[in-house]
Amino acid sequence: MAVPPSTHPHRLLPLFLGLFQGALLLFFTLFVTYDEPSAQAEDTSVVANQVYSTFPFFQDIQVMLVVGLGLLLTFLPRYGFSALTHNFLLLNFSMQWALVLQGLLHHFHHGQIHLDLHKLLISEFAAVTVLISMGAILGRASPCQLLVMATCEIPAYLAIEWVIVTCLGVLDVGGTITIHVFSCYFGLGVSKALFRAMQQPPHPKETPTPRSDLMSLVGTLILWVFWPSFVAVLCQPGDAQHRAILNTLLAMSASAITTVVTSSLLERDGKISPGHLQNGSLAGGVAIGVVADMAMPPVAALALGSLSAVVCVLGFRFLTPLLGRKLTLHDQCGIHNLHGLPGILGAAASVVAVLVAPKDTFGSHPSQLTPAGGNASEVVEGQWGARRAGGQALCQAAGLAVAGGASLLAGLLTGAALRLPCLARPP
Amino acid sequence: MAVPPSTHPHRLLPLFLGLFQGALLLFFTLFVTYDEPSAQAEDTSVVANQVYSTFPFFQDIQVMLVVGLGLLLTFLPRYGFSALTHNFLLLNFSMQWALVLQGLLHHFHHGQIHLDLHKLLISEFAAVTVLISMGAILGRASPCQLLVMATCEIPAYLAIEWVIVTCLGVLDVGGTITIHVFSCYFGLGVSKALFRAMQQPPHPKETPTPRSDLMSLVGTLILWVFWPSFVAVLCQPGDAQHRAILNTLLAMSASAITTVVTSSLLERDGKISPGHLQNGSLAGGVAIGVVADMAMPPVAALALGSLSAVVCVLGFRFLTPLLGRKLTLHDQCGIHNLHGLPGILGAAASVVAVLVAPKDTFGSHPSQLTPAGGNASEVVEGQWGARRAGGQALCQAAGLAVAGGASLLAGLLTGAALRLPCLARPP
Amino acid sequence: MAVPPSTHPHRLLPLFLGLFQGALLLFFTLFVTYDEPSAQAEDTSVVANQVYSTFPFFQDIQVMLVVGLGLLLTFLPRYGFSALTHNFLLLNFSMQWALVLQGLLHHFHHGQIHLDLHKLLISEFAAVTVLISMGAILGRASPCQLLVMATCEIPAYLAIEWVIVTCLGVLDVGGTITIHVFSCYFGLGVSKALFRAMQQPPHPKETPTPRSDLMSLVGTLILWVFWPSFVAVLCQPGDAQHRAILNTLLAMSASAITTVVTSSLLERDGKISPGHLQNGSLAGGVAIGVVADMAMPPVAALALGSLSAVVCVLGFRFLTPLLGRKLTLHDQCGIHNLHGLPGILGAAASVVAVLVAPKDTFGSHPSQLTPAGGNASEVVEGQWGARRAGGQALCQAAGLAVAGGASLLAGLLTGAALRLPCLARPP
Repeated sequence: MAVPPSTHPHRLLPLFLGLFQGALLLFFTLFVTYDEPSAQAEDTSVVANQVYSTFPFFQDIQVMLVVGLGLLLTFLPRYGFSALTHNFLLLNFSMQWALVLQGLLHHFHHGQIHLDLHKLLISEFAAVTVLISMGAILGRASPCQLLVMATCEIPAYLAIEWVIVTCLGVLDVGGTITIHVFSCYFGLGVSKALFRAMQQPPHPKETPTPRSDLMSLVGTLILWVFWPSFVAVLCQPGDAQHRAILNTLLAMSASAITTVVTSSLLERDGKISPGHLQNGSLAGGVAIGVVADMAMPPVAALALGSLSAVVCVLGFRFLTPLLGRKLTLHDQCGIHNLHGLPGILGAAASVVAVLVAPKDTFGSHPSQLTPAGGNASEVVEGQWGARRAGGQALCQAAGLAVAGGASLLAGLLTGAALRLPCLARPP
Repeated sequence: MAVPPSTHPHRLLPLFLGLFQGALLLFFTLFVTYDEPSAQAEDTSVVANQVYSTFPFFQDIQVMLVVGLGLLLTFLPRYGFSALTHNFLLLNFSMQWALVLQGLLHHFHHGQIHLDLHKLLISEFAAVTVLISMGAILGRASPCQLLVMATCEIPAYLAIEWVIVTCLGVLDVGGTITIHVFSCYFGLGVSKALFRAMQQPPHPKETPTPRSDLMSLVGTLILWVFWPSFVAVLCQPGDAQHRAILNTLLAMSASAITTVVTSSLLERDGKISPGHLQNGSLAGGVAIGVVADMAMPPVAALALGSLSAVVCVLGFRFLTPLLGRKLTLHDQCGIHNLHGLPGILGAAASVVAVLVAPKDTFGSHPSQLTPAGGNASEVVEGQWGARRAGGQALCQAAGLAVAGGASLLAGLLTGAALRLPCLARPP
Repeated sequence: MAVPPSTHPHRLLPLFLGLFQGALLLFFTLFVTYDEPSAQAEDTSVVANQVYSTFPFFQDIQVMLVVGLGLLLTFLPRYGFSALTHNFLLLNFSMQWALVLQGLLHHFHHGQIHLDLHKLLISEFAAVTVLISMGAILGRASPCQLLVMATCEIPAYLAIEWVIVTCLGVLDVGGTITIHVFSCYFGLGVSKALFRAMQQPPHPKETPTPRSDLMSLVGTLILWVFWPSFVAVLCQPGDAQHRAILNTLLAMSASAITTVVTSSLLERDGKISPGHLQNGSLAGGVAIGVVADMAMPPVAALALGSLSAVVCVLGFRFLTPLLGRKLTLHDQCGIHNLHGLPGILGAAASVVAVLVAPKDTFGSHPSQLTPAGGNASEVVEGQWGARRAGGQALCQAAGLAVAGGASLLAGLLTGAALRLPCLARPP
């Protein structure tokens, strides 16, 4: 009954974050600089054009993550403010942490890291994984547990992404495999290890009200609108980027309609479930990422969007309760339905797309041979020009397996670490 | 009292939408492709520049339609979630349906339709008409009725737009006549034919609360901010587009202030009516569309914005109740005040602008002779260079008459079809 | 008890605004035109590129001011709709008023003012000062009082900005000194002179609820996302703009984390105060503005962001109650903590940055010698190339002193004028 005299858990959060900010300042002091200002007027115009071509995409993605995803998570009434806050805090923490690690791993030249907008963008992508995984344990984990999860997830992501993209040469411009599948199974692993066989009845705070559903749907709509920017930002400028934007738009539009169809058929009174709409509309965006810039007919994007919405809604209706009963697996936001299943579908689609693609689709395209964007996938596309379709298809499948398996393992280990009593929420 | 055993109406919605998605997949399989990737590096840079110049506008318009317009419609408490959902569903459905019809009518070459961002944008514009018309029957029509309305409205729009823009050569870069006037009278026709002389007392759900008014105002503000993108996206790049942006900004700013003045004068206690503010602030944007890129002094944009706000607020205060009493015309969102009256005002302004414009304003401008954007209004501007001002003024007036008359007729017919019992909302 | 028969104050608002709109129409008729359309195709492409490079920034800033700042002010429940409305009204009024005054002062050539997007943007910046100052008296001042305040504040801003930027040659690309410090002390002066020693107990309307805090936080997040556009829009394209964007992103990210740390340490139960988060997260953006495009290492941006968040939160916790008790100073939104203290910190940082900057940082850079943007700070940067670091540092400090002192005086005078009985809110 009595409030425990020790307020230790309250102090752990600022202590941890404060130490991290201090270390970050030290790290930046020692290693991080900006590029030397370009000495020639011509270079200035090049830099200006890079800013104009990247910055609008970057801002769109910031709106998605900070406002859209934040609002999507407010569907639990009375937990809304915390959800928005935790999302914001974790995004910033994970982005900074990813900046440090990626700087050390990839961009460390002569003891210096040259910071630019592209590197911030790549760190932002890494931070997305944490925000997705958080969905599995939303409202049940303490802020300290979320921060420790982020601390473990970023290096796990960087390692697995390195294996998938650099070693296996998987093509995944929109992060379907490296971001969505990875973070889904990582989050489920954390949830399983953290809550084990606990089968709590749903807390009254966890029943959405019409008002919280409305705010959450606004979040979905913001994500829906800006999703093409997320998928296309790292594409080759020109045709590939244009195609990625169009494919994403088609997939998301098909998802929206198919979600309404499927949800309406499943619900007894024909009404659309808010949860289905909030998630199913985005399923197409998750699935299309891996194939968005590939040479495939527009109908494939439509079909993939429709199919992933069906899979997502069916997952909510049947799979989540089943996993809850059989495996006592707690998945608060249903990330397995929004990120896991459509991600697997997208990866499967990429295997097919690679197999049926015309031989000279990649490699012959001049824009894909010039290393313009400084992006990891280019190197890969260079490789892939020389690689046979069968081999590439195998790699896509292997990438999916690695993303699913390794992330589940990493998540389970992280979840076990989160059981440390000092991290738990005070009673 | 007992729930009717037949759940037929519940099943009609997914059936209809599901069949449509199936047909869409078939259509895309047979006819729709992307452009061949450009073989030369130079073309790649052209495509990239087109993406960078169009895509930010496109995203702005998506935010307007999905988030802004959706939130604007949430002013009916307890109907908020449905309004947002129906807006989202209708946008996607209408956009896809317009893509099919426009592809068949305008872009069918050698059995193929080449999809690009510009064609998606044009379809989005067609879908806007449905979202506007929906405002007349918001909260009283079933989802099935809304879908059937969309199915009829898109071909009606394409036909009437063809008459107005291609046959009559009306200049209307921001869609004032073709989109706003058309969809307003179409929606009123539907409402009249659907509800006939029914004079229901306003439902308690239909009285806005302070909270629903706040959300709705946020929607207005989002529309207000991004409106210049909507008006200017199809303009000629360069001076014309710059002028269109400035004119729209001026008109909307004048609208905002004049709405406050007018509403404050009309209300007994000097308070501003939320409904007036939510609609009047946007009236300038509706009216300016048709003249935004024409050569006229900035003061004309200010005056047009002010005048349309006055007309809009007066319409809410006096005309809507009058139409309700005399014609038993139900107009839930007051679309006649926001889209009808300012649209007519804008069309009248375009007649004046064309008459007083300097002889060589159009045609002499080199950018307007080069077919850069692939946009219908260019052809028209070429014609208009050769046409005398009097003739063009007559055409503008004729376009307004066609938009108003034909759409009212089409709306009445559509509304009659919506009375089919199987479409109605289950009791 | 009885409602007073005179409704004079109700009529003053529309009268004032109506007269202003009339005068604005007259002014535009007499003096304002657009640029002549460029006669050559080459110029058209230059104009188009200017639109594409400025317009996305402009739209971002519009979203910040209309939606972000508006929502941030809705933290007082039941005053939410009014806060959003007043913010919107004041923005439009102040922007138009600034357009007139700036046109007369700076852009009046041969009896004409050529309107373009850049001039609208500069007027928007002037309007920001009014929106910030309003925060001090939010919810306690009548709309008429707010309008009269705007009428006085815009000329005061233009005069003080002229002294600071043109006479003293202060470098302040993001408006830290000219906008934030100025408007903070102006607002505090108004509040002091208007309310004097009145010490009202906080009105129940003035206690935020969880729901109003959520909406307000959404406003904060929108401001947080788009802040880099606000700081960087007037920078030299190329490296300077790129650096300004990166510095702002780093400072805001550090602010967000440090706010959580500081607030969590200060509150007894370790919970984060909503008010701290809503304001502290933005403090870094206020402080970084003045140094954003200077040559300084990235760590400086991080440190400045962290420090200003600490200062902001400490201000809320200790300084605001102190000022309230000792000086009976009413500061509803805590603008002194968000704009005053971080602004002073930023100005101090600029003194240091100027002193330690390498000698040839400015002046040698070719992009900074070409007058591309038509922006006041260029002239200054030209001067500064020739000026010694010590002199520039002195000027930065003098600019801060002028911004603080002169604005306080102007605010006190304005506040005294607002005590006119006819402006007060009816009982």
